[in-house]
Amino acid sequence: MKINQLTGLIAAPFTPMHPDGSLNLDIIPDYYRMLKANANTGAFICGSTGEGVSLTLEEKKSVAEAWASATEQDADFKVITLVGGTCLQDAIDLARHAQSVNLYAVSFTAPFYFKPANVQMLAACCQAVAEAVPEMPFYYYHIPVLTGVNFAMIDLLREVDGRIVNFAGIKYTHEDFMDFLSCLHFANGKYDLLWGRDENLLSALVLGAKGGVGSTYNYAAPLYNQLIDAFNKGDLSKAQALQQQSIDMISLLGKYGGIATGKAYMKLVGLNCGEFRLPVKNMSHNAFEAFKKEVQALPFETYKSRNPQLVTS
Amino acid sequence: MKINQLTGLIAAPFTPMHPDGSLNLDIIPDYYRMLKANANTGAFICGSTGEGVSLTLEEKKSVAEAWASATEQDADFKVITLVGGTCLQDAIDLARHAQSVNLYAVSFTAPFYFKPANVQMLAACCQAVAEAVPEMPFYYYHIPVLTGVNFAMIDLLREVDGRIVNFAGIKYTHEDFMDFLSCLHFANGKYDLLWGRDENLLSALVLGAKGGVGSTYNYAAPLYNQLIDAFNKGDLSKAQALQQQSIDMISLLGKYGGIATGKAYMKLVGLNCGEFRLPVKNMSHNAFEAFKKEVQALPFETYKSRNPQLVTS
Amino acid sequence: MKINQLTGLIAAPFTPMHPDGSLNLDIIPDYYRMLKANANTGAFICGSTGEGVSLTLEEKKSVAEAWASATEQDADFKVITLVGGTCLQDAIDLARHAQSVNLYAVSFTAPFYFKPANVQMLAACCQAVAEAVPEMPFYYYHIPVLTGVNFAMIDLLREVDGRIVNFAGIKYTHEDFMDFLSCLHFANGKYDLLWGRDENLLSALVLGAKGGVGSTYNYAAPLYNQLIDAFNKGDLSKAQALQQQSIDMISLLGKYGGIATGKAYMKLVGLNCGEFRLPVKNMSHNAFEAFKKEVQALPFETYKSRNPQLVTS
Amino acid sequence: MKINQLTGLIAAPFTPMHPDGSLNLDIIPDYYRMLKANANTGAFICGSTGEGVSLTLEEKKSVAEAWASATEQDADFKVITLVGGTCLQDAIDLARHAQSVNLYAVSFTAPFYFKPANVQMLAACCQAVAEAVPEMPFYYYHIPVLTGVNFAMIDLLREVDGRIVNFAGIKYTHEDFMDFLSCLHFANGKYDLLWGRDENLLSALVLGAKGGVGSTYNYAAPLYNQLIDAFNKGDLSKAQALQQQSIDMISLLGKYGGIATGKAYMKLVGLNCGEFRLPVKNMSHNAFEAFKKEVQALPFETYKSRNPQLVTS
Repeated sequence: MKINQLTGLIAAPFTPMHPDGSLNLDIIPDYYRMLKANANTGAFICGSTGEGVSLTLEEKKSVAEAWASATEQDADFKVITLVGGTCLQDAIDLARHAQSVNLYAVSFTAPFYFKPANVQMLAACCQAVAEAVPEMPFYYYHIPVLTGVNFAMIDLLREVDGRIVNFAGIKYTHEDFMDFLSCLHFANGKYDLLWGRDENLLSALVLGAKGGVGSTYNYAAPLYNQLIDAFNKGDLSKAQALQQQSIDMISLLGKYGGIATGKAYMKLVGLNCGEFRLPVKNMSHNAFEAFKKEVQALPFETYKSRNPQLVTS
Repeated sequence: MKINQLTGLIAAPFTPMHPDGSLNLDIIPDYYRMLKANANTGAFICGSTGEGVSLTLEEKKSVAEAWASATEQDADFKVITLVGGTCLQDAIDLARHAQSVNLYAVSFTAPFYFKPANVQMLAACCQAVAEAVPEMPFYYYHIPVLTGVNFAMIDLLREVDGRIVNFAGIKYTHEDFMDFLSCLHFANGKYDLLWGRDENLLSALVLGAKGGVGSTYNYAAPLYNQLIDAFNKGDLSKAQALQQQSIDMISLLGKYGGIATGKAYMKLVGLNCGEFRLPVKNMSHNAFEAFKKEVQALPFETYKSRNPQLVTS
Repeated sequence: MKINQLTGLIAAPFTPMHPDGSLNLDIIPDYYRMLKANANTGAFICGSTGEGVSLTLEEKKSVAEAWASATEQDADFKVITLVGGTCLQDAIDLARHAQSVNLYAVSFTAPFYFKPANVQMLAACCQAVAEAVPEMPFYYYHIPVLTGVNFAMIDLLREVDGRIVNFAGIKYTHEDFMDFLSCLHFANGKYDLLWGRDENLLSALVLGAKGGVGSTYNYAAPLYNQLIDAFNKGDLSKAQALQQQSIDMISLLGKYGGIATGKAYMKLVGLNCGEFRLPVKNMSHNAFEAFKKEVQALPFETYKSRNPQLVTS
Repeated sequence: MKINQLTGLIAAPFTPMHPDGSLNLDIIPDYYRMLKANANTGAFICGSTGEGVSLTLEEKKSVAEAWASATEQDADFKVITLVGGTCLQDAIDLARHAQSVNLYAVSFTAPFYFKPANVQMLAACCQAVAEAVPEMPFYYYHIPVLTGVNFAMIDLLREVDGRIVNFAGIKYTHEDFMDFLSCLHFANGKYDLLWGRDENLLSALVLGAKGGVGSTYNYAAPLYNQLIDAFNKGDLSKAQALQQQSIDMISLLGKYGGIATGKAYMKLVGLNCGEFRLPVKNMSHNAFEAFKKEVQALPFETYKSRNPQLVTS
């Protein structure tokens, strides 16, 4: 198996919902076109942003199928799906399904109810899932703030290297740059390290990160592509200013209730993904109006993702 | 709907597994008989001890069916099943299934990946599940150490009282006796408060607790029934000594790796439930031998649960 | 050295302050008389309630001297002072001073900036302080919520037993009843275990606790003495009801900003101790008025501490 | 008052101790010359590395006097001292003393036993101390891992801006780059933001950090000056490699017991600062020998700080 290095911006799509809370898969082709039009290189589905934990097994398969179908003509656009999760048998089932519909890769996060007692147990969990789809790249998803599992990833790499042949890298959603750089340097940079904290992308780029997975790339990819461009050209004060714009945008997530705010931003770029399921709190109508006003004070128009449906209509 | 008050010891059964990790449902009738023989009043299945999070949806249904079948002639023995979980749709599905096979009650714990932002959101989650089975008692399962969700339960009771008609009480696995007593006193003691920390049962009894759910009631119910008896007779020094025996037994769980140690104790009472699934670490053979030696130093023989299969054979 | 067992209610006095924030030591004789009149058996000074960490070394000595002087005719009333703290040299200095003014005992909590790496290091800290005053009883003060140091106290007892001759026991301000009972039973009950969570006193009494140290004993000692009396007589429903009254009273501390609320209660019993120093937030005038109204809805008058100055005047 | 911007590497000196644990102030002139020879621009004394919390008030004054004396001819070398702490009166006393001996600036960290309830209370604490020395630059020391106080510093800046005239900036020892960049950009970059995590300096430089305070600058300043130089020249792969060397060096701190390992490194550069006081665990002789062997496997010789005493002898 050849593992292509993932690079660039990989959006973590929201799972579109109808007003009654059921899946709205019909807009996924539009969703794909919008991501593509904004130079995203892939999509990480059914993760935190995609509410994977709030979907049934069958729903997760349906989402995977919809993305597989929407992107099947585009070999350059990589779709990775998160497969779990607390139940390894479900994760294996989802991984095999992902393979059967030709997704690019699978990802797996640490069981987060019972937590692995040490990094060896975590490696054993990864192995059980990765072995089920030996031809697919496998990415560990490191997000301690949600899983409560916080081992140094350099220790996980030491455990899996040479043992899980399709271990391709880590989606790294944690602000431990010491560990992150150590992982980047491990085994001559053999593993993909996908930065997962959009608000700090610049601090990861300077360490050598080549790609990132994030929720704000859904609706503000141009901002980040400009940031990367400025960084690559050595224009640090521009890159810093763009990172600050990203921070100001992300600050509204904190202010308006967290992850559900992302779907409010999606409405502003013209792709209505509905609301989050319980237990997530959605914005009230009044909060949404206040939110819109605050967004108007940002230079959001200058860097937001463009929706080709809107542009062409 | 009439909600019977749950009282006495309710064991939280381990889910029996074959050596290959598949379910071993055949021994559940024996399991039921052993619990019954040791004066347990019910079983709380598919919870933490039962590894619900590590089972597929279909497996959880199979376990529920096996317990329903094993206990169908015994109206006094109450079976409650945990239905979730992070995905409310799955929880609703499991609740309806529990009703269809005539279990006594359902239980639900807080979503533990995305966590409810406040107690109102938690109440909304409870309501969504409880409403699906309005004729069944619904118990909230409070276990912050595993879910990371830690609202005062008195605040949850205030939210749900008069609003969720089948809310029957709380399985309370958290050492906040101030909150616990407040819940016991709420609305004239209308709600069941099932104490979930075996090692502190005595401190809950003195506050008025009438029942408990625990994993050590599987293999040491006589100890706790003696403790309750001593407490009821006012023989506190005996009750304290028995609680200390319980603590000494439970201390070995900490020493030998946590929850998986419970299945080792089950082997010592003659009901082999196999091992835990990943991510839980099971005892090595050597550790099991060392563990057995330490158990021999306890007065375990004097208070362990009796297995009628072994007794009669 | 003979170590008397401490029993009964030991109040943790507030440190009285003038309106300008300087010490108001003149009212300490009145303070002592009030505690005595309400059947407190001692005072634990310069602890959390006493704002020891916010006092200079000289101020702590002044407070100790004032209590020593106020109680010098009363051998039955035991004064214990907290001596530290992060700086062991200061703790030793304070311990020697406490001895020089004839206080009954010293207490010491874990260093809470740099934290001991293990229980052996904590024992070494205790030893360094205890050895400085080998004729005085030494109590470790266990309060993980404030120090962030949370070792099982049974492990500390195992470390110090036979090694620190004046180690007399533990002021146990943490809700781990498993550990607490194990400590009570250790070495045939050789050590004092002073319960430090007033809201759960009943759950400690049933395990065998003989005494407690608390802040609400300053202004509501009669409530707790009634509770102990009801418990000793086996009248559990009365004891439970009194514990609930204690909880309702303590709930106002949470609602009105924590520890500073205690000084508001002191005003209601007629002993104005002023305000807390920074960083503690004091109640505003409006909050105090609202607080008073809420207290009026409690049966506070029936169980509050009586101030002999007010009674006799 | 003119506030010079602090830039470059500011070492956080260890407090030198004799074998008996008393202060060894005699080597502070040598210590200063070594820092100077290695292009440190200042010293941050009595902080975490300097064990301020383990020193008496008088000892802290002695340390301040020794550094003041050693550096009095060198206006370019800035000495900042940490003044507290839990007791504001002590902090004010130390601040006035720092002014009297002509130190450059004072620093203050959040009270860490009682913790400020909100950022307004923290600002009030800062103000009480800063106002005592209105002619000295005042730096807030943000180190949540040790204080447990974790407000966003952008919120503190908003509180103090225009209110505390000598508020000069923040020693930022926390890995929240989103907050850090926001602070750098606040009020047109009016405040110094001194990065405090040596292992991530590169990720702070790219955001615009101009200086840092750290413990490893004591013994490895050349490494970091090379890193800064490579970064400024745009040679990122060299900067990354140097940051990795820093990480490998710092990893040994974790492995050999934390902060005390720093004094072991000091022995390797020829400035014996003795040991840490309790509660910190010092390395055993055997551990030190193993540690030395591991250091030999690093390229420590190529980047360690040079001791002019050794060089010239």
